[in-house]
Amino acid sequence: MFIVIYWPYAFYSAYFYAMVSVVLIGTGNVAKVLFKTFNTISQIQLIQVIGRSDAALEFFGQTVAVSKDFGDIPHADICLLAVKDEAITEVARKITNFKGLVAHVSGTSPMDILRPNTRIGVFYPLQTFTPGRVLDFTKVPLCIEAEYPKDQELLLTLGRYMSRSVHVISSEERKKLHVAAVFVNNFSNFMYTIGNEICEENGLDFNLLKPLINETAKKLKVLSPYEAQTGPARRGDTNTMHEHLRLLKNEQQREIYILLSNAIKADYG
Amino acid sequence: MFIVIYWPYAFYSAYFYAMVSVVLIGTGNVAKVLFKTFNTISQIQLIQVIGRSDAALEFFGQTVAVSKDFGDIPHADICLLAVKDEAITEVARKITNFKGLVAHVSGTSPMDILRPNTRIGVFYPLQTFTPGRVLDFTKVPLCIEAEYPKDQELLLTLGRYMSRSVHVISSEERKKLHVAAVFVNNFSNFMYTIGNEICEENGLDFNLLKPLINETAKKLKVLSPYEAQTGPARRGDTNTMHEHLRLLKNEQQREIYILLSNAIKADYG
Repeated sequence: MFIVIYWPYAFYSAYFYAMVSVVLIGTGNVAKVLFKTFNTISQIQLIQVIGRSDAALEFFGQTVAVSKDFGDIPHADICLLAVKDEAITEVARKITNFKGLVAHVSGTSPMDILRPNTRIGVFYPLQTFTPGRVLDFTKVPLCIEAEYPKDQELLLTLGRYMSRSVHVISSEERKKLHVAAVFVNNFSNFMYTIGNEICEENGLDFNLLKPLINETAKKLKVLSPYEAQTGPARRGDTNTMHEHLRLLKNEQQREIYILLSNAIKADYG
Repeated sequence: MFIVIYWPYAFYSAYFYAMVSVVLIGTGNVAKVLFKTFNTISQIQLIQVIGRSDAALEFFGQTVAVSKDFGDIPHADICLLAVKDEAITEVARKITNFKGLVAHVSGTSPMDILRPNTRIGVFYPLQTFTPGRVLDFTKVPLCIEAEYPKDQELLLTLGRYMSRSVHVISSEERKKLHVAAVFVNNFSNFMYTIGNEICEENGLDFNLLKPLINETAKKLKVLSPYEAQTGPARRGDTNTMHEHLRLLKNEQQREIYILLSNAIKADYG
């Protein structure tokens, strides 16, 4: 008797996790990356892509059903909202006919924003996506959160089909991760912009700095950033710092140079 | 007769450029990278490595002659000073018996610092070198400068044996390149340090951010940093910025967040 009860359940469970069906809402950059990745994974069945305009949906319409009707979501395990942060609340309120799990892909928005839906979750890819650049999605960290353990399991299953780096992260942790990401991504990139400006102002080729930029990122494989720090501020080389400030004509660049050099000096003082 | 005069000269010239002999002064990180690279290139003959102590010279002594005598440099095409900026003047004054080209490898020091030697130059590898990390030297940009055209040619020859990216850069240009390098290398790395701090303060794994850090650097292959800029400051998302400042407890982190966000806002405003 035991076996008779047990086996059908296991069969059902294996079947359930073998295939994950998804409806994708959104037509932006992240939606496109998810769409392309879904298309390469046989265990993920993309049911429909929903967007606001025919033009935006054209990219998707070749291989999957598309729709502009947010009020009539077809049945699927997960409805994934890959829309701008500002739009999540509005879209989440429209899709109340949907009975599956509703998840957004944002780094900043809390999970709660998806109510009044009850089965809610987050599926946040911690990466920067550039149109036209092919990226190995198996290395993208996926930060997962869900209201219910079963839904967390479902998102983990979806995530593990896509990436080797899947993590359960709470809304509060995700927020902090996002602040850290602003420093390592947005602010680092702005340092590149200033480097580029200095090159352009002096007729120098910014390409000369690209190997250095790449190696600065890559050396974190073997050193912590604290250990990896070099430069005039790190070694307290006041002469070089004065010389650099003399060369910087832009007031904003000077302010940033001073603040960051002082912060580095304080850290290693 | 023309042929008789012409061929020996061409032969001599080909011979001269075929082989470049080098004496290396210095035993630090850059000296080690140069040493290892020289050893892999048949056209570069490393005559001797000179350093201050037996301990420091041990690394080099297995495969090449070593010496502690700065006052008696053996004959070579080039004597390369891979020593700290502060030490260049002193070392340059000691080696006046040397008849070849004297060049330093610094990004900040002017070429003139090598006087009273007359045949002087600069051989600056624009890269960050980490002990224990193997790096493809053929991609390291080499910035070259010399007092005389023939010596410039000699450094170009040496450089082209080592790297596919060799450039003639004046002392003044090199200084500006170095300021730009401080932004893209030292300051970017400090942004990673802050990201790491935020992770540690909140029990989050910094490894989660490493794919993002790498991709931020790599996307410069297809976008300028100005085009690549994203984030709350870029899109003027005041809510998220306030939320981030609320989360940052460290005064230094807050100051940096505000200054850089304002600078980004001003750039894209």
